Amino acid sequence: MNAPVNDLAALAPLEIRRLSTADAGFDAALDHLLRVPTDSDPGIAERTAAIVNDVRQRGDAAVLDYTRRFDRLDAPSVAALELGQADLKAAFEDLPAAQRQALEDATRRVRAYHERQLQACGQGFQYRDEDGTLLGQKVTPLDRVGVYVPGGKAAYPSSVLMNVVPAHVAGCGEIIMVVPTPGGERNPLVLAAAYIAGVSRAFTLGGAQAVAALAYGTATVPRVDKITGPGNAYVAEAKRLVFGQVGIDMIAGPSEILVLADGSTPPDWVAMDLFSQAEHDELAQSILLSPDAAYLDAVQAAMDRLLPTLPRRDIIRASLQGRGALIYTRDMAEACAISNRVAPEHLEVSSSEPERWEPLLRHAGAIFLGQYTSESLGDYCAGPNHVLPTSGTARFSSPLGVYDFQKRSSLIGVSAAGAQVLGRIAVTLAEGEGLQAHAQAAALRLQP
Amino acid sequence: MNAPVNDLAALAPLEIRRLSTADAGFDAALDHLLRVPTDSDPGIAERTAAIVNDVRQRGDAAVLDYTRRFDRLDAPSVAALELGQADLKAAFEDLPAAQRQALEDATRRVRAYHERQLQACGQGFQYRDEDGTLLGQKVTPLDRVGVYVPGGKAAYPSSVLMNVVPAHVAGCGEIIMVVPTPGGERNPLVLAAAYIAGVSRAFTLGGAQAVAALAYGTATVPRVDKITGPGNAYVAEAKRLVFGQVGIDMIAGPSEILVLADGSTPPDWVAMDLFSQAEHDELAQSILLSPDAAYLDAVQAAMDRLLPTLPRRDIIRASLQGRGALIYTRDMAEACAISNRVAPEHLEVSSSEPERWEPLLRHAGAIFLGQYTSESLGDYCAGPNHVLPTSGTARFSSPLGVYDFQKRSSLIGVSAAGAQVLGRIAVTLAEGEGLQAHAQAAALRLQP
Repeated sequence: MNAPVNDLAALAPLEIRRLSTADAGFDAALDHLLRVPTDSDPGIAERTAAIVNDVRQRGDAAVLDYTRRFDRLDAPSVAALELGQADLKAAFEDLPAAQRQALEDATRRVRAYHERQLQACGQGFQYRDEDGTLLGQKVTPLDRVGVYVPGGKAAYPSSVLMNVVPAHVAGCGEIIMVVPTPGGERNPLVLAAAYIAGVSRAFTLGGAQAVAALAYGTATVPRVDKITGPGNAYVAEAKRLVFGQVGIDMIAGPSEILVLADGSTPPDWVAMDLFSQAEHDELAQSILLSPDAAYLDAVQAAMDRLLPTLPRRDIIRASLQGRGALIYTRDMAEACAISNRVAPEHLEVSSSEPERWEPLLRHAGAIFLGQYTSESLGDYCAGPNHVLPTSGTARFSSPLGVYDFQKRSSLIGVSAAGAQVLGRIAVTLAEGEGLQAHAQAAALRLQP
Repeated sequence: MNAPVNDLAALAPLEIRRLSTADAGFDAALDHLLRVPTDSDPGIAERTAAIVNDVRQRGDAAVLDYTRRFDRLDAPSVAALELGQADLKAAFEDLPAAQRQALEDATRRVRAYHERQLQACGQGFQYRDEDGTLLGQKVTPLDRVGVYVPGGKAAYPSSVLMNVVPAHVAGCGEIIMVVPTPGGERNPLVLAAAYIAGVSRAFTLGGAQAVAALAYGTATVPRVDKITGPGNAYVAEAKRLVFGQVGIDMIAGPSEILVLADGSTPPDWVAMDLFSQAEHDELAQSILLSPDAAYLDAVQAAMDRLLPTLPRRDIIRASLQGRGALIYTRDMAEACAISNRVAPEHLEVSSSEPERWEPLLRHAGAIFLGQYTSESLGDYCAGPNHVLPTSGTARFSSPLGVYDFQKRSSLIGVSAAGAQVLGRIAVTLAEGEGLQAHAQAAALRLQP
């Protein structure tokens, strides 16, 4: 599996930032490290708005035009760009047996986890006051959702599973996948994942035009209620624009990992975990915190040794040198406090006593406990979702889940007796707010 | 309570739209009716961005400048604009006894409902695979939230309760309220509600400058993790701009009510319920659906009779004539189907058998069951939240709730044995995606 080392640069030691919490300028250095590089091409917003408006106006015709232009795909109709269930099934059946099995295993585990999630937090409730008044909340699945799957380099079948399975478990009536196939090239793993995860319909469409088609509907593409899934800057901007017309999931920033290590995990393992984040893209961020200085050295040495063996070493190097850091802390408790400040997307507690530190960790997308829990196991098949809040947004947001494909409605059924009690309160408050019709609506239900 | 009728216009019959589902053009007429009027002053976005950036750069000094300019309030420091707990308490204690009691009663009921909600859907879960692998999700409250409360005309103490209580029940560490006091004029009911609901700190700040101060923090105003609460177009735009830096709640459109009536509720009651929505603002929307044509006439007659008695009759008339409708349906089932298409914020099932229709209703912010359940009881004191999705967004979003002040973190603790099973799946899938470091991170944990 080791790729040949064919250049000297690959052998140069990694110049990765070293910080210590005891440094005078540590707080400022950490803030600087966490600053998210922004993609600030103002042309993207303008071009995306033009595409979205055009698709909204001209529907299928505009979708076809943009697909021709951006994906070099010339189709007679949008219907011709739809993949049938037979296409998806064939993609699955044509896979090597090991891949088929791995997809099935991963899907089964992801489904099991999300079914537990549905049981734990996807239920409504009802109760009655003594006077018979009913109060509660009902939970219903979204009718129809759209899942965006990127094409090209970043076409990840695991993303298909992680977006489609929770929608399926939530009970969404219809799940529409869009995936660009530039030049007509289809990714068989993506189609196979769509099959096994339970996509209802699939279109080989991408970019802002696909997002707009899902948000507003066209003659061929049905209008959905929510759009989830990652994409490039145009897709992100299109999702931002159609938000309100449909729901969207979060707009993800660069991916991140933070590892808290007490020194008990083999350094090679932690080095590879840091690499697995860094290999995603040059803006990805990998940070290691440890109160064991010798361990930080050992991980750095392991990184220097292992880096040349990896095909994506150039991306890894750029990511680690640009945004990575090894941070020496006073103790594990301080490392936990810093982790709460970072609110990382992925948080590994690479410790012999993870249960000791877990209660201290308040903000993180996913927490990986103990040395055997590499982030990559969570990315693919442990069960929890790999769509997680980035850029510190774990302070206020959550992993993608069944709850993102459900919505709640309050239930209120006031009894005649209840209306007497509630009516008097409402009249007083409504009059205080100067809303006389509100007060009268309550007063009319009062018995004399 | 009846205001004097001092002009003839107040006596003119309401010219409210009548539709029938049997009409040829009904679908188009309904679509037209539901179109949300958009506030499209492009200057607002530009001016708001300038304010937000200025506060981000200059902090307190900028906040003071804008407060001076927009609220005509000249303070020596932002600290001087903070209200102490003693100020809030005094506001509460100075209220007339009836208002004090009503606020206490409403708060107790709203708290009780949200505590049920916390029990029902605010909990985490954990389970173990046979091989000892731990999977789960933990739920934690947000550390610090900001609640925006509008000043002036639309200063509603009930809004304070509905935003603060769920944050409090969720266990947020600190709840910061901002409320503009133009010209220094404070609303005692708002301050009293802040006291009773449990606000931690309060600043007499408003507008985009208050939102920016909460999002980025200043020397005096602490940075929060999420901002909720309604406001004018500048506040809404500022929330849009800071989204990502902090969480925000939904950005509300005009308020709406849809009433499904089988004819069993006194027409006066339904007329007043339609008015209570319409009195909010001229863009508010009130729609009545009934399969009983004589009942529609009776409600219209009741409206004509009751309208002149209401102080806000001009707003009500403008709202009902501009955006209201009485719709004749084939039967109640068809009325329910149309309601699902509308996905209204407030949905009254004014029927003698509401439990028959409730299961058919899939999309609504809050469902009010039976003739005694006026929307106004829900607005103030039934218990459920009155912050609800508008403009059809109930298709994919939910009432404000405890869950909006919590976030979830996945928990994954893979055992040594589990790593053998999961590792093989992850290696296959990671290689399929071309991510060798992911594959290696899993492979290193495999025992030979």
